Amino acid sequence: MNKLDVTEAIFAIKKEKDLTWEAIAEAVGMTDVWVTSACLGMNSCTEEVADKLVSFLGLPDAAKAALMEYPTKTWDQAIPQDPLIYRLYEVVGVYGPTLKEVIQEKFGDGIMSAIDFSMSVEKEENPKGDRVVLTLNGKFLPYKSW
Amino acid sequence: MNKLDVTEAIFAIKKEKDLTWEAIAEAVGMTDVWVTSACLGMNSCTEEVADKLVSFLGLPDAAKAALMEYPTKTWDQAIPQDPLIYRLYEVVGVYGPTLKEVIQEKFGDGIMSAIDFSMSVEKEENPKGDRVVLTLNGKFLPYKSW
Amino acid sequence: MNKLDVTEAIFAIKKEKDLTWEAIAEAVGMTDVWVTSACLGMNSCTEEVADKLVSFLGLPDAAKAALMEYPTKTWDQAIPQDPLIYRLYEVVGVYGPTLKEVIQEKFGDGIMSAIDFSMSVEKEENPKGDRVVLTLNGKFLPYKSW
Amino acid sequence: MNKLDVTEAIFAIKKEKDLTWEAIAEAVGMTDVWVTSACLGMNSCTEEVADKLVSFLGLPDAAKAALMEYPTKTWDQAIPQDPLIYRLYEVVGVYGPTLKEVIQEKFGDGIMSAIDFSMSVEKEENPKGDRVVLTLNGKFLPYKSW
Amino acid sequence: MNKLDVTEAIFAIKKEKDLTWEAIAEAVGMTDVWVTSACLGMNSCTEEVADKLVSFLGLPDAAKAALMEYPTKTWDQAIPQDPLIYRLYEVVGVYGPTLKEVIQEKFGDGIMSAIDFSMSVEKEENPKGDRVVLTLNGKFLPYKSW
Amino acid sequence: MNKLDVTEAIFAIKKEKDLTWEAIAEAVGMTDVWVTSACLGMNSCTEEVADKLVSFLGLPDAAKAALMEYPTKTWDQAIPQDPLIYRLYEVVGVYGPTLKEVIQEKFGDGIMSAIDFSMSVEKEENPKGDRVVLTLNGKFLPYKSW
Amino acid sequence: MNKLDVTEAIFAIKKEKDLTWEAIAEAVGMTDVWVTSACLGMNSCTEEVADKLVSFLGLPDAAKAALMEYPTKTWDQAIPQDPLIYRLYEVVGVYGPTLKEVIQEKFGDGIMSAIDFSMSVEKEENPKGDRVVLTLNGKFLPYKSW
Amino acid sequence: MNKLDVTEAIFAIKKEKDLTWEAIAEAVGMTDVWVTSACLGMNSCTEEVADKLVSFLGLPDAAKAALMEYPTKTWDQAIPQDPLIYRLYEVVGVYGPTLKEVIQEKFGDGIMSAIDFSMSVEKEENPKGDRVVLTLNGKFLPYKSW
Amino acid sequence: MNKLDVTEAIFAIKKEKDLTWEAIAEAVGMTDVWVTSACLGMNSCTEEVADKLVSFLGLPDAAKAALMEYPTKTWDQAIPQDPLIYRLYEVVGVYGPTLKEVIQEKFGDGIMSAIDFSMSVEKEENPKGDRVVLTLNGKFLPYKSW
Amino acid sequence: MNKLDVTEAIFAIKKEKDLTWEAIAEAVGMTDVWVTSACLGMNSCTEEVADKLVSFLGLPDAAKAALMEYPTKTWDQAIPQDPLIYRLYEVVGVYGPTLKEVIQEKFGDGIMSAIDFSMSVEKEENPKGDRVVLTLNGKFLPYKSW
Repeated sequence: MNKLDVTEAIFAIKKEKDLTWEAIAEAVGMTDVWVTSACLGMNSCTEEVADKLVSFLGLPDAAKAALMEYPTKTWDQAIPQDPLIYRLYEVVGVYGPTLKEVIQEKFGDGIMSAIDFSMSVEKEENPKGDRVVLTLNGKFLPYKSW
Repeated sequence: MNKLDVTEAIFAIKKEKDLTWEAIAEAVGMTDVWVTSACLGMNSCTEEVADKLVSFLGLPDAAKAALMEYPTKTWDQAIPQDPLIYRLYEVVGVYGPTLKEVIQEKFGDGIMSAIDFSMSVEKEENPKGDRVVLTLNGKFLPYKSW
Repeated sequence: MNKLDVTEAIFAIKKEKDLTWEAIAEAVGMTDVWVTSACLGMNSCTEEVADKLVSFLGLPDAAKAALMEYPTKTWDQAIPQDPLIYRLYEVVGVYGPTLKEVIQEKFGDGIMSAIDFSMSVEKEENPKGDRVVLTLNGKFLPYKSW
Repeated sequence: MNKLDVTEAIFAIKKEKDLTWEAIAEAVGMTDVWVTSACLGMNSCTEEVADKLVSFLGLPDAAKAALMEYPTKTWDQAIPQDPLIYRLYEVVGVYGPTLKEVIQEKFGDGIMSAIDFSMSVEKEENPKGDRVVLTLNGKFLPYKSW
Repeated sequence: MNKLDVTEAIFAIKKEKDLTWEAIAEAVGMTDVWVTSACLGMNSCTEEVADKLVSFLGLPDAAKAALMEYPTKTWDQAIPQDPLIYRLYEVVGVYGPTLKEVIQEKFGDGIMSAIDFSMSVEKEENPKGDRVVLTLNGKFLPYKSW
Repeated sequence: MNKLDVTEAIFAIKKEKDLTWEAIAEAVGMTDVWVTSACLGMNSCTEEVADKLVSFLGLPDAAKAALMEYPTKTWDQAIPQDPLIYRLYEVVGVYGPTLKEVIQEKFGDGIMSAIDFSMSVEKEENPKGDRVVLTLNGKFLPYKSW
Repeated sequence: MNKLDVTEAIFAIKKEKDLTWEAIAEAVGMTDVWVTSACLGMNSCTEEVADKLVSFLGLPDAAKAALMEYPTKTWDQAIPQDPLIYRLYEVVGVYGPTLKEVIQEKFGDGIMSAIDFSMSVEKEENPKGDRVVLTLNGKFLPYKSW
Repeated sequence: MNKLDVTEAIFAIKKEKDLTWEAIAEAVGMTDVWVTSACLGMNSCTEEVADKLVSFLGLPDAAKAALMEYPTKTWDQAIPQDPLIYRLYEVVGVYGPTLKEVIQEKFGDGIMSAIDFSMSVEKEENPKGDRVVLTLNGKFLPYKSW
Repeated sequence: MNKLDVTEAIFAIKKEKDLTWEAIAEAVGMTDVWVTSACLGMNSCTEEVADKLVSFLGLPDAAKAALMEYPTKTWDQAIPQDPLIYRLYEVVGVYGPTLKEVIQEKFGDGIMSAIDFSMSVEKEENPKGDRVVLTLNGKFLPYKSW
Repeated sequence: MNKLDVTEAIFAIKKEKDLTWEAIAEAVGMTDVWVTSACLGMNSCTEEVADKLVSFLGLPDAAKAALMEYPTKTWDQAIPQDPLIYRLYEVVGVYGPTLKEVIQEKFGDGIMSAIDFSMSVEKEENPKGDRVVLTLNGKFLPYKSW
């Protein structure tokens, strides 16, 4: 059983049991964004989390090892097409140099880590239409000289 | 004077007067991220903001019209290379499908607008290394059927 | 049963029963363009529409959930090749900057939404050769400043 | 004076005299979309229209020949980036196969011409937000067999 | 049975019965180039031609509907590699702007249609080596203004 | 003076003297397609033809050597965008494998040369709209085995 | 049995019988380079050579027709990656314009044919390390004017 | 004076003095292929060769240092378009895997060096048309294990 | 059994027996980096190493020949996406010209071989976070002139 | 004076004064690799280092600020072409998955930082040909879960 098999099994069970990512996240004690990414095969679980996922969802035992494997993180489309994902890509294109200016003014020469990193999605209710609030939190890494 | 000329003039003045984006933002009453993007030519100013920018920075009068022009928003690199910007692209690649799952679970079928949209950068102090907190806030747009 | 399976099932039934998209659209009370896109897996149905489609076409019950799933909207060819679709791409290439000028002159700085959006195809009879009239109708979204 | 020089001259005059595309279109007796595309160098003018454009805008005489030249129609970005133009590209990607189904059901095997073709932009006022109505009108061309 | 299945069936029968495209073309009363393209799935047959093809080749009945379906015309290689096809691509690259000059000088601003179009291949015997004579015949379509 | 300079000089003179490619071709005793390609820098002239071109058009003497130079034949767009040229590319895409079948059936395993090659454009008058007749004539080159 | 099946069968037999390309070449009376390319499906055999290959290798009878079929010559990687093949690509990139200068100085305006063409590989023994000697031999084809 | 300036100077002198690459090669005591590549900026000269080139051609003194600089070897077109160079690329595509088979059968696992490498062009006279004989000679480099 | 089958078999056994690459390397007397690359199918084994691998891991006998085969070295992603591999690609992009300057200053005009080459990974313990030390060792190959 | 101007000035001075990167590095108290990258505009200097570089090389005062600016790190070629740099790219392609296996076995799930990173080049003398020893040293960053 590899990570892809586990992802397919989770989608099938989630549909059958009518579960939400939020419920799964709560059951294993992690956030919804992280748990979803682990279920999609883009992050590795600790043994504890893998155990909880297997038991809460009723996955086969072989799923545990696959959930704990270190993933190869790849994506199909260099320029994403699904409108939800493309809009994020567009934000990076339009605002990338702006963010470089602002972040490096506040922190110095360096980058925001995408490894020592977390992310969350919140709903902001608004009479003119609810808003998605997406928060990225990454460690600042200064360039080293030598 | 086009938007590119104005951007170059702003960078020259900013360097000469040793200004920060934060100071410029404060002077014109907008946020640092938005002001930076307008100065980089990626957003259009209202007449009021353009007036303030011209007067605060001491830009030539012709800059006002250029700042108010509607920009053509393009970027050079389909896959960005500068490490700070690439990391954001990587986040979209690695977490795009995860965000689609989580946002659509919370909001229904639709997207987060990149037009009715704002963004901010905060510094989170941390003894193990300060963290960049990047917040995206976009209106949820549900797909229409007809 | 996923969206692709449902699409294949619909094509088979449509051929066997010699149905038109127009007839299917009428039966479910939506337009032909939207119904076709939903049957091709590019839009999600409400439960009511899914029920009607399943019952009118005689699809298996499992098709209902698949029709209601939120689609991942992707396409194979960045530059389309089929002549009918390529001509539309060519129109975007040749007239894109023209439309930007004209739309932004009429509406201000912003875009036409492709989400809060509808489209129709009409036949205009003409002795020199009938004409295709394609109408796109999208909400204007002004850029926000912050 | 080539087409590019004329385009730049027109933009300068349009800004200086504070003209709209609509006013220019009216002055030469053509639609705003077509006139804009001709001014952007993407269509050739008849002698009559070129004369009117030169005289209304006060262009140099050499502009007339350039306006009448047959353009080479090319665009820079295979996948457009400006959000207004990208949304149109996205519509072609998402709805291209749908339009092929619907047009060919109504007309038979063939395509909508992008040459014997016209286009218009209208504003549809709407309390929830005005809407852009974009109409494409092209001759249907049936495939020939031989 | 889809167009691809029919193409494979035709190739198998053609090999088994040792037929030529020329013989098939004669049997159905069309030219060899057009019949070959229809058998390769790149053109749709009228009912009459489909009947003749099925009967002459001894194809299964289900082939008739597939031959009459409107094809999606796509090709695998944006830049073709097979030397015979690449040479044609090279001719378009090397002589494309030349043909634009010459055709538009003779006909005015417009294009040669690839839809209202036919093509033939002839052998010109020559003691220094026979020559391929390829003739393309397409309706001239003038650009419309509006 | 390089080939590009000569091309620009020829376009300027051609416009000023209101010449056609056909007239230039006649004056130098070659066909219009070939002469146009030589003037666009895509073929080299013999000394005799270069002399005639220089003298007929009144080009500077330095043009002669440039016209005789062996060109580097390149083109900007792997997939051409101008509609007239794209339609030719589309023909290669749609009918490439068909032509391979038909040519190799008539001639054996090999290709049509694009070097030992000529091409012509004729106008076929037609009450339903004139037609462009494009003829390619290339030596058949059989593959060698060794 | 298509060319790909034959290639796989030949590799299996070659491994099982521990044959070399050189031995196969000798058995059929052709060179090792050409025979290898025919076995890889990149050239067509005459009936005589196909008979010898089938009999020497003990291929199934159906292989004969496949070996005689005219191949579609394509390759997977526009920029090859295997180091042995990449080095050849690098030679074309680094020395391509050099070879154009030298060949056209010796032969006039034209090209080296890749169709009327042969190639060989020899080993040059050398105490500092043996050397690969690769010889390409192609007919010079002068450009035609018309 | 950089390598590009030197190349342009050499082309100008070569044209003015009506020199051949062969004559230049003889004058400096190297082969025509290598000298041409050095003059095109794709190889570095020893001081001795640079001296001879400068003196034979009458180049400015500053050319010497530029000729001795170590070049950055790059080329513009990943897939070359000029027919002479494309044919070489085609040979690599069509025969690359064949050459890998034959070379590795003769030499073992490894590659032909493109660094410890030389190349020559010869003319083979032939009544049916002269032939280009291109010889590549590169050291075989076996893969190392460790 | 081809190289891919062997790789899959090795991963299955490695997981089942809970082996490390280090342990496998030790058992066959080679380094961990080289052994891993051979097990991933990117290097060929000598008979001795293949025997040891088969016997230590308990692979089927057919694996031996596959391990000894000369690999075709290719990779899927021209620009790698997995963050660990992308960072190495980024280093090549950011520091490539720097390394060219420094290596050629120390060694002269030439390159570091990727064939006569070895590589190792060490862990450098560090209280602020352990460090990866990656060492590449390749023979310097000077360019040849001729 | 921007980073590019400074780079050009440094190359000119380095050539004129016949300096090595090693000498420059020593003068400013940093390593040759890092100093070279800073001079090529790929790293920012501290004020101290910038002062030393300006004074040692005799750069204009304006160079100091440019050397201290935070660079935008980009490169021209997604797939590098210069043989020295391509070989490094090839190593990443061939050995990337191998390094992922070995590094993650030694360190756990995470990556080697390219930011908290240093690199050195050493010459290993060897009678069979000197060897380049390239050492990369980057902090291991474990993936975070949240």
